[in-house]
Amino acid sequence: MTIPANPLPRIVYIVSDGTGITAENFSQSILAQFEASFRQIRIPFVDTVDKAYDAVSQINSTDPKYGRAIVFTTLVNPEVNQIVGQAKALVLDMFQTFVAPLEQTLGMRSTHAINRLHHNADTDAYKNRIEAINYSLAHDDGQSNQNLVDANVILVGVSRVGKTPTSLYLAMQYGLKAANYPLIPEDFERGQLPKDLLAHKQKIFGLTIDPERLSEIRNERRPGSNYAKLENCRYEINEATAMMRRESIPWVSTTSKSIEEIATTILQAIRSDKTVLG
Amino acid sequence: MTIPANPLPRIVYIVSDGTGITAENFSQSILAQFEASFRQIRIPFVDTVDKAYDAVSQINSTDPKYGRAIVFTTLVNPEVNQIVGQAKALVLDMFQTFVAPLEQTLGMRSTHAINRLHHNADTDAYKNRIEAINYSLAHDDGQSNQNLVDANVILVGVSRVGKTPTSLYLAMQYGLKAANYPLIPEDFERGQLPKDLLAHKQKIFGLTIDPERLSEIRNERRPGSNYAKLENCRYEINEATAMMRRESIPWVSTTSKSIEEIATTILQAIRSDKTVLG
Repeated sequence: MTIPANPLPRIVYIVSDGTGITAENFSQSILAQFEASFRQIRIPFVDTVDKAYDAVSQINSTDPKYGRAIVFTTLVNPEVNQIVGQAKALVLDMFQTFVAPLEQTLGMRSTHAINRLHHNADTDAYKNRIEAINYSLAHDDGQSNQNLVDANVILVGVSRVGKTPTSLYLAMQYGLKAANYPLIPEDFERGQLPKDLLAHKQKIFGLTIDPERLSEIRNERRPGSNYAKLENCRYEINEATAMMRRESIPWVSTTSKSIEEIATTILQAIRSDKTVLG
Repeated sequence: MTIPANPLPRIVYIVSDGTGITAENFSQSILAQFEASFRQIRIPFVDTVDKAYDAVSQINSTDPKYGRAIVFTTLVNPEVNQIVGQAKALVLDMFQTFVAPLEQTLGMRSTHAINRLHHNADTDAYKNRIEAINYSLAHDDGQSNQNLVDANVILVGVSRVGKTPTSLYLAMQYGLKAANYPLIPEDFERGQLPKDLLAHKQKIFGLTIDPERLSEIRNERRPGSNYAKLENCRYEINEATAMMRRESIPWVSTTSKSIEEIATTILQAIRSDKTVLG
Protein backbone atom coordinates (compact mmCIF):
# COMPACT_ATOMS: atom_id res chain seq x y z
CA MET A 1 0.00 0.00 0.00
CA THR A 2 1.60 3.24 -1.09
CA ILE A 3 -0.08 6.58 -0.81
CA PRO A 4 1.55 9.25 -2.97
CA ALA A 5 3.88 11.38 -0.86
CA ASN A 6 2.73 14.87 -0.06
CA PRO A 7 4.80 17.32 -2.10
CA LEU A 8 5.32 19.44 1.02
CA PRO A 9 7.57 17.96 3.68
CA ARG A 10 6.16 17.02 7.06
CA ILE A 11 7.77 19.16 9.77
CA VAL A 12 9.53 17.20 12.49
CA TYR A 13 10.76 18.93 15.64
CA ILE A 14 13.34 17.45 17.93
CA VAL A 15 13.05 19.03 21.36
CA SER A 16 15.83 18.22 23.82
CA ASP A 17 17.28 19.61 27.03
CA GLY A 18 20.72 18.80 25.63
CA THR A 19 21.99 19.16 22.09
CA GLY A 20 19.33 16.83 20.66
CA ILE A 21 21.92 15.38 18.28
CA THR A 22 21.31 11.78 19.30
CA ALA A 23 17.55 12.24 19.09
CA GLU A 24 17.95 13.87 15.67
CA ASN A 25 20.00 10.93 14.39
CA PHE A 26 17.56 8.48 15.88
CA SER A 27 14.45 10.16 14.47
CA GLN A 28 16.16 10.32 11.09
CA SER A 29 16.64 6.57 10.95
CA ILE A 30 13.01 5.95 11.92
CA LEU A 31 11.70 8.49 9.40
CA ALA A 32 13.83 6.87 6.70
CA GLN A 33 11.33 4.01 6.91
CA PHE A 34 8.66 6.13 5.28
CA GLU A 35 8.32 7.08 1.62
CA ALA A 36 7.64 10.67 2.52
CA SER A 37 9.69 13.82 2.82
CA PHE A 38 10.47 15.41 6.15
CA ARG A 39 12.08 18.56 7.38
CA GLN A 40 13.78 18.20 10.75
CA ILE A 41 14.13 21.18 13.05
CA ARG A 42 16.14 20.71 16.19
CA ILE A 43 15.24 22.82 19.24
CA PRO A 44 18.13 22.24 21.65
CA PHE A 45 18.83 23.24 25.27
CA VAL A 46 15.15 23.35 26.32
CA ASP A 47 15.82 23.10 30.05
CA THR A 48 13.48 25.66 31.62
CA VAL A 49 9.73 26.19 31.72
CA ASP A 50 10.12 29.39 29.67
CA LYS A 51 12.05 27.63 26.95
CA ALA A 52 9.43 24.87 26.98
CA TYR A 53 6.68 27.41 26.28
CA ASP A 54 8.83 28.96 23.52
CA ALA A 55 9.23 25.54 21.92
CA VAL A 56 5.49 24.94 22.09
CA SER A 57 4.77 28.31 20.41
CA GLN A 58 7.21 27.49 17.66
CA ILE A 59 5.61 24.08 17.11
CA ASN A 60 2.06 25.43 17.27
CA SER A 61 2.85 28.11 14.71
CA THR A 62 3.78 25.52 12.08
CA ASP A 63 1.83 26.36 8.93
CA PRO A 64 -1.05 23.84 8.67
CA LYS A 65 -0.22 23.31 4.98
CA TYR A 66 2.63 21.03 6.14
CA GLY A 67 0.21 18.70 7.93
CA ARG A 68 0.25 17.76 11.58
CA ALA A 69 3.70 18.33 13.03
CA ILE A 70 5.69 15.47 14.55
CA VAL A 71 7.70 16.07 17.71
CA PHE A 72 10.38 13.82 19.20
CA THR A 73 11.25 14.80 22.76
CA THR A 74 14.07 13.87 25.12
CA LEU A 75 13.32 15.92 28.20
CA VAL A 76 14.31 14.84 31.66
CA ASN A 77 12.51 17.47 33.74
CA PRO A 78 8.90 16.28 34.22
CA GLU A 79 7.49 19.83 34.22
CA VAL A 80 9.27 20.80 31.00
CA ASN A 81 8.28 17.47 29.46
CA GLN A 82 4.65 17.95 30.39
CA ILE A 83 4.52 21.44 28.82
CA VAL A 84 6.08 20.32 25.53
CA GLY A 85 3.79 17.28 25.56
CA GLN A 86 0.85 19.66 25.12
CA ALA A 87 2.04 20.96 21.75
CA LYS A 88 -0.53 20.56 18.97
CA ALA A 89 1.35 17.76 17.25
CA LEU A 90 2.09 14.05 17.43
CA VAL A 91 4.49 14.06 20.40
CA LEU A 92 6.73 11.01 20.69
CA ASP A 93 8.39 10.91 24.09
CA MET A 94 11.68 9.12 23.60
CA PHE A 95 12.62 9.54 27.20
CA GLN A 96 9.75 8.60 29.47
CA THR A 97 8.76 5.71 27.20
CA PHE A 98 11.89 3.84 28.22
CA VAL A 99 12.56 5.24 31.67
CA ALA A 100 9.45 3.68 33.20
CA PRO A 101 10.31 0.03 32.36
CA LEU A 102 13.95 0.67 33.31
CA GLU A 103 12.92 2.03 36.71
CA GLN A 104 11.00 -1.17 37.26
CA THR A 105 13.74 -3.60 36.25
CA LEU A 106 16.45 -1.66 38.11
CA GLY A 107 14.32 -1.22 41.23
CA MET A 108 15.22 2.46 41.46
CA ARG A 109 13.91 5.81 40.32
CA SER A 110 15.68 7.80 37.64
CA THR A 111 17.42 10.91 38.89
CA HIS A 112 15.63 13.30 36.56
CA ALA A 113 18.86 15.26 36.51
CA ILE A 114 19.39 17.20 33.32
CA ASN A 115 22.60 16.85 31.41
CA ARG A 116 24.14 14.18 33.56
CA LEU A 117 25.90 13.02 30.45
CA HIS A 118 26.45 16.43 28.93
CA HIS A 119 28.65 17.86 31.63
CA ASN A 120 31.35 15.73 30.26
CA ALA A 121 33.85 18.40 29.28
CA ASP A 122 35.78 17.70 32.48
CA THR A 123 35.68 13.94 32.51
CA ASP A 124 38.55 11.63 31.70
CA ALA A 125 36.56 10.13 28.84
CA TYR A 126 36.27 13.57 27.31
CA LYS A 127 39.97 14.31 27.70
CA ASN A 128 40.76 10.96 26.11
CA ARG A 129 38.58 11.86 23.19
CA ILE A 130 40.30 15.20 22.58
CA GLU A 131 43.68 13.52 23.00
CA ALA A 132 42.65 10.82 20.52
CA ILE A 133 41.60 13.43 17.95
CA ASN A 134 44.96 15.19 18.29
CA TYR A 135 46.75 11.86 18.03
CA SER A 136 44.84 10.81 14.93
CA LEU A 137 45.46 14.16 13.25
CA ALA A 138 49.18 13.98 14.01
CA HIS A 139 49.30 10.41 12.69
CA ASP A 140 47.21 10.94 9.58
CA ASP A 141 48.56 9.63 6.29
CA GLY A 142 51.81 8.31 7.77
CA GLN A 143 52.84 11.83 8.84
CA SER A 144 54.54 10.58 11.97
CA ASN A 145 56.09 7.31 13.00
CA GLN A 146 56.48 8.56 16.58
CA ASN A 147 54.54 7.00 19.42
CA LEU A 148 52.96 4.33 17.25
CA VAL A 149 53.18 2.20 20.36
CA ASP A 150 50.32 4.34 21.74
CA ALA A 151 48.01 3.68 18.80
CA ASN A 152 44.90 1.59 19.44
CA VAL A 153 44.64 0.80 15.76
CA ILE A 154 46.66 1.57 12.62
CA LEU A 155 44.70 1.67 9.38
CA VAL A 156 46.46 0.92 6.11
CA GLY A 157 45.30 1.12 2.51
CA VAL A 158 45.88 2.86 -0.80
CA SER A 159 45.29 6.55 -1.33
CA ARG A 160 41.58 7.60 -1.18
CA VAL A 161 40.32 4.35 0.32
CA GLY A 162 38.80 6.17 3.33
CA LYS A 163 41.54 6.01 5.97
CA THR A 164 41.37 9.62 7.16
CA PRO A 165 37.63 9.96 7.82
CA THR A 166 37.57 6.54 9.47
CA SER A 167 40.51 7.38 11.76
CA LEU A 168 38.94 10.69 12.77
CA TYR A 169 35.59 9.05 13.40
CA LEU A 170 37.15 6.36 15.63
CA ALA A 171 38.91 9.08 17.60
CA MET A 172 35.93 11.40 17.88
CA GLN A 173 33.27 8.81 18.65
CA TYR A 174 35.25 6.24 20.63
CA GLY A 175 38.35 8.05 21.87
CA LEU A 176 40.54 5.57 20.00
CA LYS A 177 43.99 6.65 18.92
CA ALA A 178 43.78 5.71 15.26
CA ALA A 179 46.88 6.21 13.13
CA ASN A 180 46.79 5.65 9.40
CA TYR A 181 49.44 4.82 6.83
CA PRO A 182 49.15 4.88 3.07
CA LEU A 183 50.22 1.86 1.03
CA ILE A 184 52.08 3.28 -1.97
CA PRO A 185 53.70 1.85 -5.12
CA GLU A 186 57.13 1.80 -3.39
CA ASP A 187 55.71 -0.54 -0.74
CA PHE A 188 54.37 -2.85 -3.45
CA GLU A 189 57.71 -2.90 -5.28
CA ARG A 190 59.52 -3.75 -2.05
CA GLY A 191 56.76 -6.27 -1.29
CA GLN A 192 56.73 -5.17 2.34
CA LEU A 193 54.63 -3.10 4.69
CA PRO A 194 56.06 0.35 5.49
CA LYS A 195 58.90 -0.52 7.85
CA ASP A 196 57.62 1.72 10.69
CA LEU A 197 54.68 -0.64 10.96
CA LEU A 198 56.48 -3.95 11.22
CA ALA A 199 56.71 -3.78 15.01
CA HIS A 200 52.98 -3.06 15.33
CA LYS A 201 51.45 -5.66 13.06
CA GLN A 202 48.91 -6.85 15.59
CA LYS A 203 47.28 -3.39 15.56
CA ILE A 204 47.00 -3.03 11.80
CA PHE A 205 43.65 -3.11 10.06
CA GLY A 206 43.33 -2.81 6.28
CA LEU A 207 40.86 -0.93 4.13
CA THR A 208 40.18 -1.89 0.54
CA ILE A 209 37.72 -0.80 -2.15
CA ASP A 210 36.50 -1.83 -5.60
CA PRO A 211 38.95 -0.49 -8.20
CA GLU A 212 36.06 0.99 -10.23
CA ARG A 213 34.87 3.04 -7.28
CA LEU A 214 38.43 4.07 -6.41
CA SER A 215 38.98 5.26 -9.97
CA GLU A 216 35.81 7.38 -9.76
CA ILE A 217 36.89 8.96 -6.48
CA ARG A 218 40.41 9.67 -7.72
CA ASN A 219 39.08 11.11 -10.97
CA GLU A 220 37.11 13.67 -9.02
CA ARG A 221 40.34 14.75 -7.40
CA ARG A 222 42.77 14.50 -10.32
CA PRO A 223 40.77 14.09 -13.52
CA GLY A 224 42.45 12.11 -16.27
CA SER A 225 45.61 11.38 -14.24
CA ASN A 226 47.46 8.08 -14.29
CA TYR A 227 46.79 7.99 -10.54
CA ALA A 228 43.05 7.82 -11.25
CA LYS A 229 43.19 5.38 -14.17
CA LEU A 230 41.20 2.20 -13.65
CA GLU A 231 44.19 0.11 -14.66
CA ASN A 232 46.38 1.75 -12.04
CA CYS A 233 43.67 1.44 -9.39
CA ARG A 234 43.34 -2.26 -10.19
CA TYR A 235 47.09 -2.72 -9.81
CA GLU A 236 47.24 -0.92 -6.46
CA ILE A 237 44.23 -2.74 -5.01
CA ASN A 238 45.53 -6.12 -6.14
CA GLU A 239 48.90 -5.46 -4.59
CA ALA A 240 47.43 -4.07 -1.39
CA THR A 241 45.08 -7.00 -0.82
CA ALA A 242 47.84 -9.48 -1.67
CA MET A 243 50.04 -7.83 0.93
CA MET A 244 47.29 -7.90 3.56
CA ARG A 245 46.63 -11.56 2.86
CA ARG A 246 50.34 -12.38 3.07
CA GLU A 247 50.75 -10.50 6.35
CA SER A 248 47.48 -11.88 7.81
CA ILE A 249 46.06 -8.40 8.25
CA PRO A 250 42.25 -8.32 8.59
CA TRP A 251 40.55 -5.93 6.18
CA VAL A 252 37.20 -4.53 5.16
CA SER A 253 35.92 -3.15 1.88
CA THR A 254 34.73 0.45 2.08
CA THR A 255 33.00 0.39 -1.31
CA SER A 256 29.40 0.87 -0.27
CA LYS A 257 29.89 1.47 3.44
CA SER A 258 29.39 4.63 5.43
CA ILE A 259 32.10 5.80 7.84
CA GLU A 260 29.99 4.47 10.73
CA GLU A 261 29.72 1.04 9.15
CA ILE A 262 33.46 0.84 8.48
CA ALA A 263 34.22 1.97 12.05
CA THR A 264 31.79 -0.56 13.51
CA THR A 265 33.36 -3.39 11.53
CA ILE A 266 36.82 -2.39 12.76
CA LEU A 267 35.60 -2.17 16.35
CA GLN A 268 34.04 -5.61 16.11
CA ALA A 269 37.41 -6.97 15.02
CA ILE A 270 39.65 -5.18 17.52
CA ARG A 271 37.28 -5.42 20.46
CA SER A 272 35.95 -8.91 19.94
CA ASP A 273 37.60 -9.96 23.21
CA LYS A 274 35.62 -7.34 25.14
CA THR A 275 32.22 -8.64 24.13
CA VAL A 276 32.93 -11.91 25.96
CA LEU A 277 31.97 -11.62 29.59
CA GLY A 278 34.13 -13.20 32.30
CA MET B 1 14.29 6.62 47.41
CA THR B 2 17.76 5.33 46.65
CA ILE B 3 18.66 1.68 46.64
CA PRO B 4 22.43 1.06 46.86
CA ALA B 5 23.84 0.34 43.44
CA ASN B 6 24.81 -3.23 42.69
CA PRO B 7 28.61 -3.51 42.59
CA LEU B 8 28.37 -5.53 39.37
CA PRO B 9 27.31 -3.63 36.27
CA ARG B 10 24.01 -4.42 34.61
CA ILE B 11 24.61 -5.75 31.11
CA VAL B 12 22.95 -3.76 28.34
CA TYR B 13 22.85 -5.09 24.79
CA ILE B 14 22.17 -2.90 21.78
CA VAL B 15 20.94 -5.06 18.92
CA SER B 16 20.67 -3.34 15.55
CA ASP B 17 20.46 -4.26 11.89
CA GLY B 18 22.79 -1.36 11.17
CA THR B 19 25.77 -0.13 13.15
CA GLY B 20 23.73 0.46 16.30
CA ILE B 21 25.77 3.61 16.99
CA THR B 22 22.74 5.87 17.30
CA ALA B 23 20.96 3.38 19.55
CA GLU B 24 24.10 3.06 21.66
CA ASN B 25 24.32 6.83 22.13
CA PHE B 26 20.64 7.03 22.87
CA SER B 27 20.63 4.22 25.42
CA GLN B 28 23.65 5.78 27.07
CA SER B 29 21.85 9.05 27.67
CA ILE B 30 18.83 7.25 29.14
CA LEU B 31 20.97 5.01 31.36
CA ALA B 32 22.83 8.09 32.60
CA GLN B 33 19.61 8.87 34.46
CA PHE B 34 20.21 5.99 36.85
CA GLU B 35 22.65 5.82 39.75
CA ALA B 36 23.81 2.40 38.66
CA SER B 37 26.64 1.04 36.59
CA PHE B 38 26.11 -0.47 33.18
CA ARG B 39 28.13 -2.29 30.62
CA GLN B 40 27.00 -1.73 27.06
CA ILE B 41 27.58 -4.37 24.42
CA ARG B 42 26.68 -3.49 20.86
CA ILE B 43 25.61 -6.32 18.54
CA PRO B 44 25.56 -4.70 15.09
CA PHE B 45 24.48 -5.86 11.62
CA VAL B 46 21.79 -8.28 12.88
CA ASP B 47 19.89 -8.49 9.60
CA THR B 48 19.09 -12.19 9.18
CA VAL B 49 17.16 -14.80 11.14
CA ASP B 50 20.41 -16.66 11.86
CA LYS B 51 22.09 -13.59 13.29
CA ALA B 52 18.96 -12.93 15.34
CA TYR B 53 19.23 -16.37 16.94
CA ASP B 54 22.95 -15.77 17.57
CA ALA B 55 22.14 -12.50 19.32
CA VAL B 56 19.52 -14.22 21.46
CA SER B 57 22.00 -16.94 22.49
CA GLN B 58 24.54 -14.31 23.44
CA ILE B 59 21.97 -12.42 25.50
CA ASN B 60 20.58 -15.57 27.15
CA SER B 61 24.07 -16.70 28.16
CA THR B 62 24.63 -13.56 30.24
CA ASP B 63 25.77 -14.68 33.68
CA PRO B 64 22.79 -14.28 36.07
CA LYS B 65 25.09 -12.62 38.61
CA TYR B 66 24.79 -9.43 36.53
CA GLY B 67 21.02 -9.34 36.99
CA ARG B 68 18.39 -9.35 34.28
CA ALA B 69 19.90 -8.11 31.03
CA ILE B 70 18.53 -5.03 29.29
CA VAL B 71 18.23 -5.02 25.50
CA PHE B 72 17.64 -2.01 23.25
CA THR B 73 16.67 -3.03 19.74
CA THR B 74 16.41 -1.17 16.43
CA LEU B 75 15.37 -3.87 14.01
CA VAL B 76 13.34 -3.18 10.93
CA ASN B 77 12.61 -6.71 9.78
CA PRO B 78 9.54 -7.97 11.69
CA GLU B 79 10.76 -11.58 11.78
CA VAL B 80 14.20 -10.65 13.10
CA ASN B 81 12.61 -8.27 15.59
CA GLN B 82 10.25 -10.93 16.84
CA ILE B 83 13.08 -13.42 17.42
CA VAL B 84 15.23 -10.95 19.36
CA GLY B 85 12.14 -9.87 21.29
CA GLN B 86 12.03 -13.35 22.83
CA ALA B 87 15.40 -12.99 24.55
CA LYS B 88 15.30 -13.56 28.32
CA ALA B 89 15.77 -9.91 29.16
CA LEU B 90 13.97 -6.58 29.37
CA VAL B 91 13.67 -5.84 25.66
CA LEU B 92 13.04 -2.19 24.77
CA ASP B 93 11.98 -1.89 21.14
CA MET B 94 13.15 1.53 20.01
CA PHE B 95 11.86 0.99 16.53
CA GLN B 96 8.35 -0.41 16.59
CA THR B 97 7.40 1.78 19.57
CA PHE B 98 7.55 4.85 17.34
CA VAL B 99 6.76 3.39 13.93
CA ALA B 100 3.17 2.51 14.82
CA PRO B 101 2.05 6.08 15.77
CA LEU B 102 3.98 7.48 12.80
CA GLU B 103 2.20 5.11 10.41
CA GLN B 104 -1.06 6.41 11.75
CA THR B 105 -0.29 10.13 11.48
CA LEU B 106 1.33 9.77 8.05
CA GLY B 107 -1.43 7.54 6.71
CA MET B 108 1.06 5.11 5.23
CA ARG B 109 2.88 1.93 6.17
CA SER B 110 6.60 1.93 6.87
CA THR B 111 8.67 0.22 4.22
CA HIS B 112 10.37 -2.23 6.61
CA ALA B 113 13.39 -1.90 4.36
CA ILE B 114 16.65 -2.46 6.18
CA ASN B 115 19.40 0.07 5.89
CA ARG B 116 17.51 2.60 3.86
CA LEU B 117 19.66 5.20 5.55
CA HIS B 118 22.80 3.14 5.71
CA HIS B 119 23.36 2.72 2.01
CA ASN B 120 24.43 6.26 1.97
CA ALA B 121 27.96 5.81 0.72
CA ASP B 122 26.83 6.79 -2.78
CA THR B 123 24.57 9.70 -1.95
CA ASP B 124 25.36 13.34 -2.47
CA ALA B 125 25.02 13.98 1.26
CA TYR B 126 27.72 11.42 1.89
CA LYS B 127 30.05 12.90 -0.71
CA ASN B 128 29.49 16.33 0.79
CA ARG B 129 30.44 14.98 4.16
CA ILE B 130 33.72 13.49 2.94
CA GLU B 131 34.44 16.68 1.02
CA ALA B 132 33.73 18.75 4.13
CA ILE B 133 36.13 16.63 6.21
CA ASN B 134 38.86 17.12 3.62
CA TYR B 135 38.12 20.82 3.49
CA SER B 136 38.22 21.21 7.27
CA LEU B 137 41.49 19.28 7.50
CA ALA B 138 43.06 21.44 4.79
CA HIS B 139 41.83 24.60 6.52
CA ASP B 140 42.75 23.62 10.07
CA ASP B 141 44.68 26.14 12.14
CA GLY B 142 44.91 28.74 9.38
CA GLN B 143 46.91 26.34 7.19
CA SER B 144 45.35 27.65 4.02
CA ASN B 145 43.74 30.91 2.99
CA GLN B 146 42.61 29.40 -0.31
CA ASN B 147 38.95 28.87 -1.08
CA LEU B 148 37.76 30.53 2.11
CA VAL B 149 34.86 31.68 0.00
CA ASP B 150 33.64 28.04 0.11
CA ALA B 151 33.66 27.85 3.92
CA ASN B 152 30.30 27.54 5.66
CA VAL B 153 31.83 28.79 8.88
CA ILE B 154 35.25 30.04 10.00
CA LEU B 155 36.06 29.49 13.66
CA VAL B 156 38.52 31.81 15.38
CA GLY B 157 40.07 31.75 18.83
CA VAL B 158 43.32 31.41 20.73
CA SER B 159 45.43 28.27 20.69
CA ARG B 160 43.80 25.27 22.50
CA VAL B 161 40.35 26.77 22.75
CA GLY B 162 38.79 23.83 20.88
CA LYS B 163 38.74 24.98 17.23
CA THR B 164 40.05 21.79 15.65
CA PRO B 165 37.71 19.20 17.22
CA THR B 166 34.74 21.52 16.69
CA SER B 167 35.58 22.06 13.01
CA LEU B 168 36.00 18.35 12.41
CA TYR B 169 32.77 17.56 14.20
CA LEU B 170 30.82 20.11 12.13
CA ALA B 171 32.28 18.56 8.99
CA MET B 172 31.73 14.96 9.98
CA GLN B 173 28.27 15.27 11.48
CA TYR B 174 26.78 18.02 9.33
CA GLY B 175 28.87 18.14 6.17
CA LEU B 176 29.79 21.75 6.90
CA LYS B 177 33.01 23.14 5.51
CA ALA B 178 34.46 24.54 8.70
CA ALA B 179 37.76 26.40 8.47
CA ASN B 180 39.55 27.58 11.59
CA TYR B 181 42.07 30.30 12.24
CA PRO B 182 44.13 30.89 15.36
CA LEU B 183 44.18 34.32 16.99
CA ILE B 184 47.80 34.92 17.96
CA PRO B 185 49.73 37.65 19.80
CA GLU B 186 50.66 39.30 16.47
CA ASP B 187 46.97 39.76 15.70
CA PHE B 188 46.44 41.36 19.12
CA GLU B 189 49.38 43.73 18.63
CA ARG B 190 48.06 44.75 15.23
CA GLY B 191 44.59 45.00 16.77
CA GLN B 192 43.09 43.35 13.70
CA LEU B 193 41.71 40.01 12.61
CA PRO B 194 44.06 37.95 10.42
CA LYS B 195 43.81 39.80 7.10
CA ASP B 196 42.74 36.68 5.15
CA LEU B 197 39.53 36.78 7.13
CA LEU B 198 38.50 40.38 6.59
CA ALA B 199 36.52 39.57 3.44
CA HIS B 200 34.61 36.78 5.19
CA LYS B 201 33.56 38.41 8.43
CA GLN B 202 29.93 37.33 8.18
CA LYS B 203 31.02 33.68 8.39
CA ILE B 204 33.25 34.03 11.43
CA PHE B 205 32.30 32.51 14.77
CA GLY B 206 34.48 32.90 17.87
CA LEU B 207 35.40 30.43 20.59
CA THR B 208 36.54 31.56 23.99
CA ILE B 209 37.31 29.84 27.31
CA ASP B 210 38.03 30.68 30.95
CA PRO B 211 41.72 31.60 31.28
CA GLU B 212 42.10 29.19 34.23
CA ARG B 213 40.88 26.25 32.18
CA LEU B 214 43.02 27.31 29.20
CA SER B 215 46.08 27.46 31.42
CA GLU B 216 45.36 23.91 32.64
CA ILE B 217 44.98 22.60 29.10
CA ARG B 218 48.13 24.33 27.87
CA ASN B 219 50.10 23.12 30.87
CA GLU B 220 49.31 19.54 29.93
CA ARG B 221 50.84 20.23 26.55
CA ARG B 222 53.77 22.45 27.48
CA PRO B 223 54.25 22.28 31.25
CA GLY B 224 55.70 25.40 32.86
CA SER B 225 55.89 27.39 29.60
CA ASN B 226 55.06 31.07 29.30
CA TYR B 227 52.47 29.95 26.74
CA ALA B 228 50.63 28.06 29.50
CA LYS B 229 51.00 30.69 32.26
CA LEU B 230 47.73 31.93 33.69
CA GLU B 231 48.82 35.53 33.19
CA ASN B 232 49.50 34.96 29.50
CA CYS B 233 46.23 33.06 29.05
CA ARG B 234 44.36 35.95 30.68
CA TYR B 235 46.04 38.40 28.32
CA GLU B 236 45.21 36.37 25.19
CA ILE B 237 41.60 35.74 26.19
CA ASN B 238 41.04 39.40 27.05
CA GLU B 239 42.46 40.51 23.75
CA ALA B 240 40.55 37.89 21.78
CA THR B 241 37.19 38.69 23.32
CA ALA B 242 37.84 42.43 22.94
CA MET B 243 38.55 41.86 19.25
CA MET B 244 35.40 39.76 18.78
CA ARG B 245 33.32 42.40 20.52
CA ARG B 246 34.87 45.17 18.37
CA GLU B 247 34.27 43.22 15.15
CA SER B 248 30.75 42.12 16.19
CA ILE B 249 31.69 38.45 15.93
CA PRO B 250 29.35 36.12 17.84
CA TRP B 251 31.14 33.75 20.21
CA VAL B 252 30.62 30.93 22.67
CA SER B 253 32.60 29.80 25.70
CA THR B 254 33.88 26.24 25.45
CA THR B 255 34.83 26.00 29.14
CA SER B 256 32.43 23.31 30.30
CA LYS B 257 30.91 22.33 26.99
CA SER B 258 31.29 19.14 25.01
CA ILE B 259 32.13 19.27 21.31
CA GLU B 260 28.47 18.48 20.55
CA GLU B 261 27.26 21.37 22.68
CA ILE B 262 29.68 23.84 21.07
CA ALA B 263 28.70 22.63 17.59
CA THR B 264 25.00 22.90 18.40
CA THR B 265 25.41 26.45 19.64
CA ILE B 266 27.25 27.42 16.46
CA LEU B 267 24.60 25.75 14.29
CA GLN B 268 21.86 27.63 16.12
CA ALA B 269 23.63 30.87 15.31
CA ILE B 270 24.51 30.24 11.67
CA ARG B 271 21.31 28.42 10.76
CA SER B 272 18.82 30.53 12.65
CA ASP B 273 17.36 31.65 9.33
CA LYS B 274 16.63 28.05 8.35
CA THR B 275 14.45 27.31 11.34
CA VAL B 276 11.95 29.90 10.17
CA LEU B 277 9.50 28.32 7.78
CA GLY B 278 8.38 30.18 4.67
